[in-house]
Amino acid sequence: MARNASLSGFTEWLPSERLVEQHVLDTLRRTFELHGFSSIETRAVETVGHLLRKGEIDKEVYALSRLQDDDGNAAAAGGKEDPNQLALHFDLTVPFARYVVENAGYLSFPFRRYQIQKVWRGERPQEGRYREFTQADIDVVADGELPFRFDVELALVIAEALSALPIPAFKLRINNRKLAEGFYRGIGLSDTAGVLRSIDKLEKIGADAVATLLKNELGATGEQAAQALALASIRTEDTSFVAAVRALGVTNELMEEGLNELQQVVAAAVKSAPGSVVADLSIARGLDYYTGTVYETVLVGHEALGSICSGGRYDALATKGNRTFPGVGLSIGVTRLVARILSQEFAKASRSVPTAVLVTLADEDSWSDAQVVAAALRARGISTEVAAKADKFGKQIKYADKRGIPYVWFTDESGAHQVKDIRSGEQVAADPVTWMPPVEDLTAQILVA
Amino acid sequence: MARNASLSGFTEWLPSERLVEQHVLDTLRRTFELHGFSSIETRAVETVGHLLRKGEIDKEVYALSRLQDDDGNAAAAGGKEDPNQLALHFDLTVPFARYVVENAGYLSFPFRRYQIQKVWRGERPQEGRYREFTQADIDVVADGELPFRFDVELALVIAEALSALPIPAFKLRINNRKLAEGFYRGIGLSDTAGVLRSIDKLEKIGADAVATLLKNELGATGEQAAQALALASIRTEDTSFVAAVRALGVTNELMEEGLNELQQVVAAAVKSAPGSVVADLSIARGLDYYTGTVYETVLVGHEALGSICSGGRYDALATKGNRTFPGVGLSIGVTRLVARILSQEFAKASRSVPTAVLVTLADEDSWSDAQVVAAALRARGISTEVAAKADKFGKQIKYADKRGIPYVWFTDESGAHQVKDIRSGEQVAADPVTWMPPVEDLTAQILVA
Repeated sequence: MARNASLSGFTEWLPSERLVEQHVLDTLRRTFELHGFSSIETRAVETVGHLLRKGEIDKEVYALSRLQDDDGNAAAAGGKEDPNQLALHFDLTVPFARYVVENAGYLSFPFRRYQIQKVWRGERPQEGRYREFTQADIDVVADGELPFRFDVELALVIAEALSALPIPAFKLRINNRKLAEGFYRGIGLSDTAGVLRSIDKLEKIGADAVATLLKNELGATGEQAAQALALASIRTEDTSFVAAVRALGVTNELMEEGLNELQQVVAAAVKSAPGSVVADLSIARGLDYYTGTVYETVLVGHEALGSICSGGRYDALATKGNRTFPGVGLSIGVTRLVARILSQEFAKASRSVPTAVLVTLADEDSWSDAQVVAAALRARGISTEVAAKADKFGKQIKYADKRGIPYVWFTDESGAHQVKDIRSGEQVAADPVTWMPPVEDLTAQILVA
Repeated sequence: MARNASLSGFTEWLPSERLVEQHVLDTLRRTFELHGFSSIETRAVETVGHLLRKGEIDKEVYALSRLQDDDGNAAAAGGKEDPNQLALHFDLTVPFARYVVENAGYLSFPFRRYQIQKVWRGERPQEGRYREFTQADIDVVADGELPFRFDVELALVIAEALSALPIPAFKLRINNRKLAEGFYRGIGLSDTAGVLRSIDKLEKIGADAVATLLKNELGATGEQAAQALALASIRTEDTSFVAAVRALGVTNELMEEGLNELQQVVAAAVKSAPGSVVADLSIARGLDYYTGTVYETVLVGHEALGSICSGGRYDALATKGNRTFPGVGLSIGVTRLVARILSQEFAKASRSVPTAVLVTLADEDSWSDAQVVAAALRARGISTEVAAKADKFGKQIKYADKRGIPYVWFTDESGAHQVKDIRSGEQVAADPVTWMPPVEDLTAQILVA
């Protein structure tokens, strides 16, 4: 990790680091598939018109242009004014919404999908922020109505997925926009989006500054500001937040709906992942267009890293004519997580190569026979290399040792085979058709600290 | 496959198609890892300066610019003149060369890597040509000297990888530039690059037109042109090409070296993949900077699709000060292959979802118990969904049927469990902690035509 990226914000892993990333990606894929999510990928590019469909983009977007245009000069980007201008996607939700609309006739709704891809943002890079990074998203989207229960289910899936990763304890913080918006209306604040935007700044600027914002910008009274902040201060690791909200004495129908929903999500999630779930009534999720449940997640002891997994419910993820596609989903910041796993050595690979066995060469003519030995080993899933040259055995063993390849294979002129564990030095007779290494040597293991 | 991409040249798969693509990718990964290749990924962007390092780019490149620059206007691309301008990579070899140089101090040479990523080319889309597509590359790169045997080994690895895919018979066509260049010099043609470029047009324009090119543009005599074409006409499925070349009566040292190398590659590859390998002395591989072995591959009966896997040996894949990194590698055009597999129905998924079991709900209150059943099934690797609503059983079964989910699970008020195969209608008592579906139902299978 002493290496610097040659382009700021664009991370590249060494082979041993990539093994940790692959472990994370494989674990997420397996968990998502065990829960019945289908894999899709969308193209890396969207039109600027589609990216802007929800209004202003608050992300920095990379636009594309052909380097060589038809008259051989550098082509200028069409810019924001050209809705057909191509640009790299900055998340996986916007492309997924387009995919759903374009392929609605071919999908079965509710449609459960996971999507693990790179996204790009031209932001100033800093700790935990990259210009290119991998996201792992799960969403369920319906045609018409999406049962609320999916909000509960997704919390369980994501808690299971995160629990399977080599990371420290996490807190999945859950809130509900209906609860918050209903509450604000109940105390007489009608610009609920404005209140949410102010509350979203709580961690950054503190309660006093938020109260000032609410009073100066939204015309709240001191009492209203105090009530909004009292709601945002509620954090419970069980469903006792319901009583805490009621104790504030506000009544509103939308708030009751939100209370009921959040209670269901938290009750089920706490049961499934005790200690990892918190009802946190300060969670607002900024400018995102959520309409009910909202989720975000921090690593305990690494809160400054920001959220490693966020999401929520959209009443209209997408629309097509008079059809509406509501959705609920979460997105894991894979690169942010992997970078932290590596820098803090939460996990590392037991070796940097997949290879379990190096078949040595006694002389140059034995290469062809060595291939037969290697094929017999590979047929049983044992990753095997054959030495490229009949160097002295010491040099061939050094090749293996340097890479962490645990076994070297020898075949003498009589065709007798021996295999040596180069860590212990133990050498035994072996048959290429039946010999197996211990399971912990078969593939590179991810060792958790 | 009746769908049209919403952006020409950018392909997106439906979930059942994506399963076929995942099968192809998983198979390649497994084969490469069994042969000791490490995975890496490089960033999607390179500087234009790096992309141009070998001179003119013959690929159409997408340049990047930030949509919102600092004063809020659309930013113009810097163009070719700015070497720090960012652009999307058009292959995986150029980024790999940079990665090797940047990380040379952290890698063990010879370094074996595979790399499966998307690349982008702003070319006019046509059958088998995309603007965004996935490549799967393997390369071995050394610091200083790379034993020739890796040229042989890579042919074996790639033949094994392709043989494991659900595709028709293929022909791996192999040639050697030393052989061709030595031969041209032996007959007195010194602009060997020019001759190679002409010979490369053989399939497109025919022998007569190539002879005219050689005479008019390279000053070849009729006899020289005839000799060059005679060499290019040699195609043998064994090492008899050696005798065929010798029969042309040309002597040259470099040619002998090439003959010897090609003989070794072809002999080993024919032994390992009989019927799939051909020494084809017309293969030139266009403008690429190969210096020895060259490979390309066609699907038998689908030659018009173009090469599905190409590569070769570079004497200098990269350089750093006075260090030289020679390499040999091949690149599989995954998207081109998958598109053909799907359009010709060479393979298809047995179902469109990972899910093997749907746990039904007798009433809304049973959702929590259903989660316990689902968790017990998932613990043994059985992909399981729980119904989101206690609809009538008929509706819940229809949900499973529509997606090809083979089993539905019922739990009655007494807690007794039954599982039904919805294809046969057979329903049996089952224990969630021990019941297993037949292995062919456990995951979506890829059925080969």
